[in-house]
Amino acid sequence: MSHSLRQQTVAIVGLGLMGGSIALALRDRVAHLVGVDPDQGTLAYAQKKGIIDSGTQDLKAGVKDAQTVILAAPVQVILDMVRSRIGSYLRANTLLIDIGSTKAQICAAMGSLPISILAMGGHPMCGKERSGIDSADADLYRGRPFVLCAPRRSTPAARLRALELVTALGAVPIEMDAERHDQLVAGISHLPYLLSAAFVHTVEGESETDPMIWELAAGGFRDTSRLAASDVRMMTDIISTNSAAIARSLALFRVQLALLEVALVSQDQAQLETMLQAAHNARVMWAEQHQT
Amino acid sequence: MSHSLRQQTVAIVGLGLMGGSIALALRDRVAHLVGVDPDQGTLAYAQKKGIIDSGTQDLKAGVKDAQTVILAAPVQVILDMVRSRIGSYLRANTLLIDIGSTKAQICAAMGSLPISILAMGGHPMCGKERSGIDSADADLYRGRPFVLCAPRRSTPAARLRALELVTALGAVPIEMDAERHDQLVAGISHLPYLLSAAFVHTVEGESETDPMIWELAAGGFRDTSRLAASDVRMMTDIISTNSAAIARSLALFRVQLALLEVALVSQDQAQLETMLQAAHNARVMWAEQHQT
Repeated sequence: MSHSLRQQTVAIVGLGLMGGSIALALRDRVAHLVGVDPDQGTLAYAQKKGIIDSGTQDLKAGVKDAQTVILAAPVQVILDMVRSRIGSYLRANTLLIDIGSTKAQICAAMGSLPISILAMGGHPMCGKERSGIDSADADLYRGRPFVLCAPRRSTPAARLRALELVTALGAVPIEMDAERHDQLVAGISHLPYLLSAAFVHTVEGESETDPMIWELAAGGFRDTSRLAASDVRMMTDIISTNSAAIARSLALFRVQLALLEVALVSQDQAQLETMLQAAHNARVMWAEQHQT
Repeated sequence: MSHSLRQQTVAIVGLGLMGGSIALALRDRVAHLVGVDPDQGTLAYAQKKGIIDSGTQDLKAGVKDAQTVILAAPVQVILDMVRSRIGSYLRANTLLIDIGSTKAQICAAMGSLPISILAMGGHPMCGKERSGIDSADADLYRGRPFVLCAPRRSTPAARLRALELVTALGAVPIEMDAERHDQLVAGISHLPYLLSAAFVHTVEGESETDPMIWELAAGGFRDTSRLAASDVRMMTDIISTNSAAIARSLALFRVQLALLEVALVSQDQAQLETMLQAAHNARVMWAEQHQT
């Protein structure tokens, strides 16, 4: 039997920034919101603030009566839950969707779930510098792309239920296969993270001979190093599940950097300016079309 | 004869964001402010807004009566002025200071000026995303490092006059030799610019096979690509005068990126996390100590 979201019990597994923001966005759109989190303090906070209706540290207890289960945990935790436990806890016709940042391994694991579970891989393209439920924001997903990747054996019902959920969050659904998603985020998200970390290591190395470098750091350093301050455990988790796609992006990047370096060291100022202007134009066009 | 800044005529050559901000900061601290700019509209704007007392498109007319001349033009224009013209226009005991982003070539050129000119290389470590005199800000330099690099044959008088000027801007003087400055800014400023441009080219290349990549771009892309939108002519000018130091920074960066890639593709998650944590910690410590 199918229910609209408004009549459902929805379980959110993981009440960090992302899960907490989903809870806030769904607050008045579902019948009952269950929060599942290993941290008792997080659950107490979420209940006190009215972000969830009930909370539990026990995965099985939290998800067994839900018609929609949203996995908002780190990628490795999602993989572990999908591979080993959650399939046996869920009712038939439950929508199981995750929001992990890589999709190929998770969707492959979802493909082995019982056929009665409506599984869908998800990845909302948004975030915040601050993590944790106290940074949660009902509008975090509003107007942002939300990628949906169907596992093999996925059904039209799973798709429709996932689209309903994404729409309820105010996000813009984008459907694609998991491998394509992972290659795109390797370039747009994991590559810049590694560049940022390697850049900070470079400056750190320079600072060993000349500590003054830290004093001179201004806006250019700040912007390019910002991603290096991301949550390390979370990012290690993510990029470890996408190493092949990232290696490809790194190879493409090295070519582009080498082309710039050739123009620079050969003093080919016209070529250098042409290449830098192309990058400038692409960035400006993106900002005009996509930045709010 | 020496005057304090308050009794001086000060000429600012180049009324962009940086020169215009110097004018605003010095507005009530000098006897007379002359603006020199090739653009008549800029001069008219600066006079109408009371940013300068008088303006001219003629370099010689603008600087010949000044006791302090500040070159706030692009690096190549500064080099051209110092090498070919300005020495013969200035009075004895005039402080000539520039604010170009690289210092070795400019300070070398200053070393050939008449000995009666008090020459000093300068580089304020600040800026804004928007350029032009309409973005000028009296507080742009306040609390920011302002590097001073003495040319050969520099005198104590030049140093004291430059320190007085930097202090009047509210900036923090940092004295070092030009080669050291150029190596530091290669790492902290020119390297991230090239990384940003190469990153945008990489995404642009990916978009040729899959244009969807632009739709998925979020905060990570925004931060890491921001520098690529810098003024291209200005940046080409700057990095072309610092190619050896930048090549060294690029070589150091490649090593750091390769170390991260080795840990990633060999699935050495512990090593990867250790390296990423070190970058995280260095960035967080910098932000705590330096960001306002």
